[in-house]
Amino acid sequence: MKSYSIKELLEKQPVGDSVVVNGWVKTFRSNRFIALNDGSTIHNLQCVVDFEKLDETVLKQITTGSALKISGTLVESQGKGQSVEIQAEDVFVHGTADPETYPIQPKKHSLEFLREKAHLRVRTNTFAAVMRVRSALAFAIHSYFQQKGFYYMHAPIITGSDAEGAGEMFRVTSLDAKKPPLDENGNVDYSEDFFGKETNLTVSGQLEAETYAMALGKVYTFGPTFRAENSNTSRHLAEFWMIEPEVAFNDLAANMDLAEDFIKSIIRYVLEHCKDDLQFLEGRLLDEEKSKPQAERSEMTLLEKLRFVVENNFKRVSYTEAIDILRNSNPNKKKKFQYIIEEWGADLQSEHERFLVEKHFKCPVILFDYPAKIKAFYMRLNEDGKTVRAMDVLFPGIGEIVGGSQREERLEVLQQKIKDLGIDDKELWWYLDLRRFGTAVHSGFGLGFERMVQFATGMGNIRDVIPYPRTPQNAEF
Amino acid sequence: MKSYSIKELLEKQPVGDSVVVNGWVKTFRSNRFIALNDGSTIHNLQCVVDFEKLDETVLKQITTGSALKISGTLVESQGKGQSVEIQAEDVFVHGTADPETYPIQPKKHSLEFLREKAHLRVRTNTFAAVMRVRSALAFAIHSYFQQKGFYYMHAPIITGSDAEGAGEMFRVTSLDAKKPPLDENGNVDYSEDFFGKETNLTVSGQLEAETYAMALGKVYTFGPTFRAENSNTSRHLAEFWMIEPEVAFNDLAANMDLAEDFIKSIIRYVLEHCKDDLQFLEGRLLDEEKSKPQAERSEMTLLEKLRFVVENNFKRVSYTEAIDILRNSNPNKKKKFQYIIEEWGADLQSEHERFLVEKHFKCPVILFDYPAKIKAFYMRLNEDGKTVRAMDVLFPGIGEIVGGSQREERLEVLQQKIKDLGIDDKELWWYLDLRRFGTAVHSGFGLGFERMVQFATGMGNIRDVIPYPRTPQNAEF
Repeated sequence: MKSYSIKELLEKQPVGDSVVVNGWVKTFRSNRFIALNDGSTIHNLQCVVDFEKLDETVLKQITTGSALKISGTLVESQGKGQSVEIQAEDVFVHGTADPETYPIQPKKHSLEFLREKAHLRVRTNTFAAVMRVRSALAFAIHSYFQQKGFYYMHAPIITGSDAEGAGEMFRVTSLDAKKPPLDENGNVDYSEDFFGKETNLTVSGQLEAETYAMALGKVYTFGPTFRAENSNTSRHLAEFWMIEPEVAFNDLAANMDLAEDFIKSIIRYVLEHCKDDLQFLEGRLLDEEKSKPQAERSEMTLLEKLRFVVENNFKRVSYTEAIDILRNSNPNKKKKFQYIIEEWGADLQSEHERFLVEKHFKCPVILFDYPAKIKAFYMRLNEDGKTVRAMDVLFPGIGEIVGGSQREERLEVLQQKIKDLGIDDKELWWYLDLRRFGTAVHSGFGLGFERMVQFATGMGNIRDVIPYPRTPQNAEF
Repeated sequence: MKSYSIKELLEKQPVGDSVVVNGWVKTFRSNRFIALNDGSTIHNLQCVVDFEKLDETVLKQITTGSALKISGTLVESQGKGQSVEIQAEDVFVHGTADPETYPIQPKKHSLEFLREKAHLRVRTNTFAAVMRVRSALAFAIHSYFQQKGFYYMHAPIITGSDAEGAGEMFRVTSLDAKKPPLDENGNVDYSEDFFGKETNLTVSGQLEAETYAMALGKVYTFGPTFRAENSNTSRHLAEFWMIEPEVAFNDLAANMDLAEDFIKSIIRYVLEHCKDDLQFLEGRLLDEEKSKPQAERSEMTLLEKLRFVVENNFKRVSYTEAIDILRNSNPNKKKKFQYIIEEWGADLQSEHERFLVEKHFKCPVILFDYPAKIKAFYMRLNEDGKTVRAMDVLFPGIGEIVGGSQREERLEVLQQKIKDLGIDDKELWWYLDLRRFGTAVHSGFGLGFERMVQFATGMGNIRDVIPYPRTPQNAEF
């Protein structure tokens, strides 16, 4: 007897064959119909048992969550809702799930409740679908870059360099926590730490990715990054995954082309490969939105939104144009924005980005050429001396999903910038070397993976798109 | 004029076309022949310049390591060593590389020297080839699992659980390093730390992967793992990448089948996709081995070794059989082993594993059914009460490359084991839940990614197969 995953069985439908499936009981009704799921697909397999032939003990053990091995014949289904089903000949109980204590019962659980049970929540339809889409998106990302001739590069996680300045960092240490060794000045003596210096968790692999782009041409990272910021919001995680492509000889225009083509390609991939899960998630979202006031509901369904991104050009708008639009906008004039845009140079807040994307342009927007003052030190200064070749891709409902730039490739300009900002250039000797030896125009960007998973699945809280979210006061499991 | 990567250009050979390439100068000879490389391939593109037409300043800037944009016509080459070349019409210098200070000159550099220049070493043929193979291997791994219906799962990097016991851990903290807050007992008060508890860097994603396997059926992780162990050897890193598949309903035999099929598949992938790089690395290895005494040289070349693994079955041997073989072996009788094998229960050292693989069986070996005492708490106890369903895959030259097991799925047995070992079961409540609710036979293993890259590239030191190695006293870049 051949063993199948439920996904394979529903695809191949070998009607008449004797088959074996393993899985967990979703529901069991009328002592006869088991809806079995093995996680391979959102769909359950109906298994029909003859309770008169089944041992009483076994019958009692068939409850939601119990693990079964079912052998039988695949037949065309008489009932509604499925085309095939198994006529069970044998049922083996791998493990039971006491209905009195098993938390994942066939009823609606709140997302908050399930966050406390992160080790079990992936047994629900919603989380299983989200995590399958997450997996597909990750593979789409690798496939895209590998097909385009990029090399995957692992940037270091523990870093001795804290010059990037993208955010607060976590310290990594093996020193005695209570009584660390002190040096002669009474400061912690990191020379006695594991790495002989103070080390932190990376906030970005970009600087190291640049070193590889300047040798292999086109590279990308895909790894975890960290922020020790006390942001207890639905948009922030202390540990999240980032994708950072970096391309030698690409200018900002080529960088925008790459970002747009890349994003469209990975969304196209999940549209093709995750139809069932996306359909389920679309239904979930519609359901969730029923409880919201009309004005807060999405104008498009999940699938419509994904198709919209794939089928439409991203609108490219300079920061300067964006400021004009915002200054003259109704919410600005009527002081409905929390932060009123008064002049050029203002940093854009989420409310402004969402206005541009959701109300004004009604499509994904790429903002570029930002004021140098509000962007990182490594971005290429424009000829105007006050803007840099930065770009942010803004998405409906999500805000910034990609941030990137052409990098400053001129040694003197970069050195001056580092000096002006008071950054310790000893930390950056190797980064500056890239400008000393065979420097060239190059560009890259970072995509926050979880934000993309949120967009693709319609999940509102970033904690619901990563298996074990790390947030302030929370590192369970 | 169309812009090409050198790889594309050498594949398509659009002879007669006007083309543009960007890259870095490998060598420049006779003021006429530039060997240009852009990292897309091991092969250089010959670009022929007419020095009489070229600006004197530009000519002087064409030195090893300088970045150029060359426009010209692709023609069939008159010279040896290449079938096509560019007749350069225009040369633009992106950036120079002063021969007086640029460390990567066209001569042999020692691997030790290059480790100090990790940001530039990938500009050498050897490291570029290694990192391209590394990238291909990573993609092969994702492709294999995705094709087989596995879902990619990101296990957490920062973990509040230290129960796995695979090794010493790094602490992750935001507390003041010098004067951490203390509780009433004078201990460090981790409730004031970022996560409200003590947290560490993960040593393995296995336990969390099990939670996902028991919902999605087949999952794999691919992420960084850490060991705060003071092992300054050519085989150990403090930060390395691991792949950990976990499969519900798989027993140990199925686990061994999976490991063997998986390893063969990814090696087959690099044999198909990295021919040029592997050929180069094979040559490098032969060269390196010339300086070794005959006895220490490999019996097979790099490619022969890779093909051998793909074409032969791994030998499956129980621990008990292995102990018999070792006890009766010459090096044991003649006391040539550092650790003499005297009785059943002994832990195997690298010298024993290498003897089995390299001298006795002369092929990859899977050892299984180890004594419970020398293996982790979560491994499935056999009916004999003294061995567990563990397996290690041993490779020539590398030793253990995969370690795995069938997991203990019985709640009571696992609880007893945890109690016997004095592990705090409060840390493992969620892991035990998997045995309370819908438990089933399941299995998995871990592959150390860098060891696999070492095997595939023939590099002897693990520090040379990861971009920025982290080892005791070293976290540069």
